[in-house]
Amino acid sequence: MTDAENAPAAHALVRRVTVGGGSEERADVTAREEPLEIRVEGRSVAVVMRTPGHDEELAAGFLVSEGVIKTARDILEISQCPSTGNTHGNIVDVLLGGAVVNWESLTRHVFSASSCGLCGKTSIDSVFQRFPPVTADVRIAAGVIAALPDKLRAAQETFAATGGLHASGIFDLEGNLLVLREDVGRHNALDKVLGFALQRNLLPLDRHILLVSGRVSFEIMQKALAAGVPVVAAISAPSSLAVDFAREGGQTLIGFLRGGTMNVYTHPARILNS
Amino acid sequence: MTDAENAPAAHALVRRVTVGGGSEERADVTAREEPLEIRVEGRSVAVVMRTPGHDEELAAGFLVSEGVIKTARDILEISQCPSTGNTHGNIVDVLLGGAVVNWESLTRHVFSASSCGLCGKTSIDSVFQRFPPVTADVRIAAGVIAALPDKLRAAQETFAATGGLHASGIFDLEGNLLVLREDVGRHNALDKVLGFALQRNLLPLDRHILLVSGRVSFEIMQKALAAGVPVVAAISAPSSLAVDFAREGGQTLIGFLRGGTMNVYTHPARILNS
Repeated sequence: MTDAENAPAAHALVRRVTVGGGSEERADVTAREEPLEIRVEGRSVAVVMRTPGHDEELAAGFLVSEGVIKTARDILEISQCPSTGNTHGNIVDVLLGGAVVNWESLTRHVFSASSCGLCGKTSIDSVFQRFPPVTADVRIAAGVIAALPDKLRAAQETFAATGGLHASGIFDLEGNLLVLREDVGRHNALDKVLGFALQRNLLPLDRHILLVSGRVSFEIMQKALAAGVPVVAAISAPSSLAVDFAREGGQTLIGFLRGGTMNVYTHPARILNS
Repeated sequence: MTDAENAPAAHALVRRVTVGGGSEERADVTAREEPLEIRVEGRSVAVVMRTPGHDEELAAGFLVSEGVIKTARDILEISQCPSTGNTHGNIVDVLLGGAVVNWESLTRHVFSASSCGLCGKTSIDSVFQRFPPVTADVRIAAGVIAALPDKLRAAQETFAATGGLHASGIFDLEGNLLVLREDVGRHNALDKVLGFALQRNLLPLDRHILLVSGRVSFEIMQKALAAGVPVVAAISAPSSLAVDFAREGGQTLIGFLRGGTMNVYTHPARILNS
């Protein structure tokens, strides 16, 4: 069975077993996962396991998250190896427009603490050295927030088929969906929407809401801060460090957004409920 | 509000908003997330965001997954910085018992393809250079597999409180739970159970079943192969590359294990249903 190499879903044959009820072979679809090597000016800086599609957005958003670029002008060109015959389109190369790259911090995914003092607080502080806290003075009705999950799900096509994709969506303050991206990796789905925003000169997203389909970790909040997002909402739970990060970063963090209710963990003044 | 630094859950105050129904402040718990720096003989090799607890297992399992160690004898000692006052216990140092370390592959999380040929197949092949495919000749009744999720959930304590933790469990062929670990990172939860197995001289786990609470990616299958696990089951969906990996690695991969049914994606001969 062949699939288009850049399709978000792949076909599989699966044996469906029902205990005590026999089994049958049937067609199934899975979320496609493939490596993508991100290069900057020919140098390899990361390999991520991602769902093919919107790879240029992924590379651009990754570099926003890493603090390398801030505007669409910082990128001269993103080229992708062609996918033909024996080769695969799983490499993108980003040519920068003069942005100064800290190669060491970009390629070094290991950082070293000077003592036994490594902790969540030091992790948070290291991010704030690169990205300032959010100060956007926005107000959003709770009803607008509560309506977002249904809008995200309505726009999700692949998830329903595969059950295997995370989604990120950017909404304006009236709750209109600007962009939705899905990926096997939730960080990739977020990087893709940030790359979309960069390419359309929408950064910083200081009058926008980010909705993610799953849980919220430290790294999700870090990426949202890099894009200046003041309100981050999630269908599921945040981690302790995500909450600490949001508090110090001036971000409103909402979890367990389900059925007209939500938990507002930090900076609730932005959410109006009257 | 203070929490023990190594507790898996942290307390938070949250504003619970019901659209049209006002809001109230209430106590909530979140899954704890903190960085852990893993050192090998004093050299920093990784920083992972993890839920504190079982850190020595996490470090040991990480090194099993990376192919650095294979038996408990490969580790002389794992020391953890004490958590007292201004310091935090978020660094572990592993002293090896003579195992030869490929420092470059261990610290370099970026790999470079020689051409545009990077693809899922090359990712799979690079793993098989380090870990042989599984050949374990085991047979398990489908009913045994179907009963595992309830056993895992019964043993999960923290998830019910926080909703934010992934779980990994190792079972024997009769469906008895040997070990369960939870973590904000699903890779960490798996590394912890592998570290547990290493420390008790249970590797390779060639007569065992791995159950994970979420989805199955390429990396989950890679870690399972490093420990020789012949059967990997998941509550949720596998990715396309996880299926390809399992097929070539001789592993039985089961997804959507719910309510007495399951999808067997690869090597179904190990699952008996009569």
